[in-house]
Amino acid sequence: MDVLRASTTVATALYYGAREIIPFRYPSEAEEMVGRMERNEVILAGERKSVKIPGFDLGNSPLEYLTGVVSNKVILFCTTNGTRMMKRVGSQRNVLLSAFVNMSSVVERLISDARDVLILCSGHEGGFSLEDSVCSGMIISRLRGSVKEYRIELGDEATAAEILYDHFKDDLMDMAMSSSHGRNLIDSGMEEDVRFCMMVDKFNIVPELRSGVWVSGKRGIEK
Amino acid sequence: MDVLRASTTVATALYYGAREIIPFRYPSEAEEMVGRMERNEVILAGERKSVKIPGFDLGNSPLEYLTGVVSNKVILFCTTNGTRMMKRVGSQRNVLLSAFVNMSSVVERLISDARDVLILCSGHEGGFSLEDSVCSGMIISRLRGSVKEYRIELGDEATAAEILYDHFKDDLMDMAMSSSHGRNLIDSGMEEDVRFCMMVDKFNIVPELRSGVWVSGKRGIEK
Repeated sequence: MDVLRASTTVATALYYGAREIIPFRYPSEAEEMVGRMERNEVILAGERKSVKIPGFDLGNSPLEYLTGVVSNKVILFCTTNGTRMMKRVGSQRNVLLSAFVNMSSVVERLISDARDVLILCSGHEGGFSLEDSVCSGMIISRLRGSVKEYRIELGDEATAAEILYDHFKDDLMDMAMSSSHGRNLIDSGMEEDVRFCMMVDKFNIVPELRSGVWVSGKRGIEK
Repeated sequence: MDVLRASTTVATALYYGAREIIPFRYPSEAEEMVGRMERNEVILAGERKSVKIPGFDLGNSPLEYLTGVVSNKVILFCTTNGTRMMKRVGSQRNVLLSAFVNMSSVVERLISDARDVLILCSGHEGGFSLEDSVCSGMIISRLRGSVKEYRIELGDEATAAEILYDHFKDDLMDMAMSSSHGRNLIDSGMEEDVRFCMMVDKFNIVPELRSGVWVSGKRGIEK
């Protein structure tokens, strides 16, 4: 999870038909790979200090991924916080991507899978971020409401996350305004991005990491 | 701050007349120093896995420090989380020790000093701990209530801490029961320790780090 903005952007891109999204830690690694691919099949994307990397096709605003531009493309993706964590969990199995925009899809999938859940927050500049904690709290709250027969045992961060979600649940934009990263983006003229990232259940999609690459995974329980 | 239990214990020991408290990271370092001191002037104290270190005089329960046993003694102190952080900030100036037991004294001192405030939470097993975050939130809430003319700017962790304090403020023992460390201590038969650590304003004392050693510092604003 990296609500602002990488996980929201990945969910958006896959919903709009991107074939796969390959995370990179450093822009130079993405540039090296693009040289070895059909240039018209690949999009080079990412940010540094919230701004599109020079020479790249797209930045990290989910609004850039709403059109057919990403349809059937492979996206090489490099962001400051989000893709760094994606790389760290790249060799793990059963890794899903979550954000507010695909909340219900992720929760349904978690219920369907019925495994223990570890939520990883990318955070902001190496530390705690309010928006990722609140989004985690929403997942916990939804799980608690959905599966009354299951045991919910929380660590301290998860206990805190659920309380923080409860505090902000009626006004996620107010939460974003209270958060350091949200304020930074708004001050840099990206308020529309922040508003987009706070929209709940915009997309019915569960991105899943397969061999370190994000693809559109199976949904949860059929309704 | 290490509410459960090192910072509560240091406040208690100084209130009951300990001359100074020297934090150590490793028990062997404390044992080495005790060999170079008058044995009847020094107390060797600390825990590993919440239990008194074998051969030491006292553990890390504040209840052990309530009597005259510590009066005018130098305490060599080694705990798992708390003293590790105390060592890390040992060379800094203007370092105060806080816990629930000395809340008002610390807040008055912070108001009196009128500096920027950085709150360091020891946490539990290398991570976030609910009780330290809630105690931080209480400091923030008290500062906000006391100094209306000052600007309160919070990072994300501080924003979260204030919300968490507000959630738990009417029942700190409920908070301790919700926390991982609190539950561990209670399960190990140390519920009285936890109850003691949740008591607000038991002691009018502000421990202060001088050259890496805790001593009783000056209080805040005279009333």
